[in-house]
Amino acid sequence: MMERKKEILTSLENLGLKIYEQIDTGYFPSIQMPSRSTENIYYDPQIRQYILGDRRVRRNTRNVRHIRPFTQLVWTALFSHELSSQRKTSTLRDVYYSAQAYEMTFKDQQESNNIITDLETVLGSSREDFNIFPEERSAVFGDLTIEYTVPGYEGKTLNLTSHPDGVMIGPALTSAEFASTTADKVIAIEKGGLFTRFVEENVHKKFNAILVLTAGQAPRATRHFIRRLNRELDVPVFIFTDGDPWGMHIAMVIISGSANAAHLRELTTPDARWSGVWATDIVDYKLPTDPLDEIDMKRLYELQRDPRYKSELLQREIKTFLKIRKKAEKEAFSRYGLTYIVDEYLPTKLEETK
Amino acid sequence: MMERKKEILTSLENLGLKIYEQIDTGYFPSIQMPSRSTENIYYDPQIRQYILGDRRVRRNTRNVRHIRPFTQLVWTALFSHELSSQRKTSTLRDVYYSAQAYEMTFKDQQESNNIITDLETVLGSSREDFNIFPEERSAVFGDLTIEYTVPGYEGKTLNLTSHPDGVMIGPALTSAEFASTTADKVIAIEKGGLFTRFVEENVHKKFNAILVLTAGQAPRATRHFIRRLNRELDVPVFIFTDGDPWGMHIAMVIISGSANAAHLRELTTPDARWSGVWATDIVDYKLPTDPLDEIDMKRLYELQRDPRYKSELLQREIKTFLKIRKKAEKEAFSRYGLTYIVDEYLPTKLEETK
Repeated sequence: MMERKKEILTSLENLGLKIYEQIDTGYFPSIQMPSRSTENIYYDPQIRQYILGDRRVRRNTRNVRHIRPFTQLVWTALFSHELSSQRKTSTLRDVYYSAQAYEMTFKDQQESNNIITDLETVLGSSREDFNIFPEERSAVFGDLTIEYTVPGYEGKTLNLTSHPDGVMIGPALTSAEFASTTADKVIAIEKGGLFTRFVEENVHKKFNAILVLTAGQAPRATRHFIRRLNRELDVPVFIFTDGDPWGMHIAMVIISGSANAAHLRELTTPDARWSGVWATDIVDYKLPTDPLDEIDMKRLYELQRDPRYKSELLQREIKTFLKIRKKAEKEAFSRYGLTYIVDEYLPTKLEETK
Repeated sequence: MMERKKEILTSLENLGLKIYEQIDTGYFPSIQMPSRSTENIYYDPQIRQYILGDRRVRRNTRNVRHIRPFTQLVWTALFSHELSSQRKTSTLRDVYYSAQAYEMTFKDQQESNNIITDLETVLGSSREDFNIFPEERSAVFGDLTIEYTVPGYEGKTLNLTSHPDGVMIGPALTSAEFASTTADKVIAIEKGGLFTRFVEENVHKKFNAILVLTAGQAPRATRHFIRRLNRELDVPVFIFTDGDPWGMHIAMVIISGSANAAHLRELTTPDARWSGVWATDIVDYKLPTDPLDEIDMKRLYELQRDPRYKSELLQREIKTFLKIRKKAEKEAFSRYGLTYIVDEYLPTKLEETK
């Protein structure tokens, strides 16, 4: 992790150096990066995520209209370098206001967010790598000992069963090393209530699992964390969401990412599996349901054509949703008693999707 | 905490016993509780929170229209007793679905939520006391060592500086005992970004403080936790929110509770102080602002008449907001550099509101 941080610092310094050299050799400085326009976003079936194509854009200071975004980008790189070298973290909102301390102006936060995405594109690293974090926090629980790298905690370890409410996934956890584990799988869960149920029922012990709470759509830091668990520990990832198009897509964004993050790698876990609640589970387990509304149906038709949903399994599940026109939440299993989901459903689905 | 749990179990058992005795002595069983209708909610300036008046409602099984809610209430008490005695937790959503395992029907979740509130009113305890928790999770950080009481962790301790992303406030933390602390104050913060900044800047050490992240409107478990910190550790509580009517009200709900929870005590911290961002801070610190919109203005006029906002300070701040017609977020202090809020603003305001 410390090396990764050093690489980011070096990339930022190289960006500055390049601009300096251009000026020094008598050229108007310019920055090139891949275009993020919709026509340049492709789904790559090999690496199973969206990527950017070959089109590039150039911010050239010879063009008067480019001077503003160019300067903003250079300032953002400077500010990110300060954050990273002082080992402080920040948020999108904070960056927007911090600009005023440097007499750098952004029209609104949308403008500064866009420039931060530009910097991600230039560096090919997500903003968490240069210490700009989201507000949302998700959590993890299980037998994994981490070693911190943040100031004041270097070398300290924490076992992630230390706090049975779950250990928050923030800047400190995201930048920690994985020291040791006995777990042989990761189970990602959409909701806090079920996460706590799983902890209380000792799912981590019974199934040798690290439990990750995504708290709805998983924040990018959590997606990166799941990828690291999958790669560094070499363990499979199983995702449990509500049985509706939105739950299915929470799983898909962990698996294959989003078009918005086509300029980034390192956020996806292509081998993770969506283990339920499937539309066919709703039928097989006779779950209590709610009807799918128009927005749900529209979303299903979109997903049916989405390149990430090409697999036989996903196409079958979409068709089943469209046919039964019903959705079910994971809590619906409580109709068979509070522990049915752990005693019966979970082992069946882990086996079925292994 | 274990004694409190036992009291709840006893209250639930006494409720059952009373019904049983009524049947045994040949009466139609009935349950009485204070009315929660708007006309029966009063602000009590003595205890500085909303309370219920003397009106009572009775669910009498002699009345055929009462049989349904009466049965639902008795079932909810039974289910809460099972949860509490098995030391499992649940959520509002889960209770709704669990009813089906007992062939108990609720029309929708709203109906089951209402019955849970009825049970709170009958027992005078909030649903977290009988193990029904919300989905939301906030966090805490600082030198406080807690001792768990949840199964599998009895007697284990955790110092709340163990994880620099913050320790989640869930069922396990809420039911823990406070073992020891060196802190002499509590600082509650509305947003995750600033919470992390405070941790990184060692606010807990520099100001001897326990930091609580409310994550927007503080969940009830967090409000109860803040009250416990205030009472059991005998330390003052300072609340920092955004400078707008919504931030002001986040502080007020921690201080004096909400009308919705008039049937409950134990959730408020009347001596807690709203330390900022005040409207007068916006002026004094020349903060970058956004204009107040119509909804903000409407809310300010409501708060101006609200009995919880009677104090000179709050009336002055409301008037200032109405006059300047501007609001500011806490991140706005970043215009003076990332650490200005910790180095300058925080000590000034702690002194000013102590």
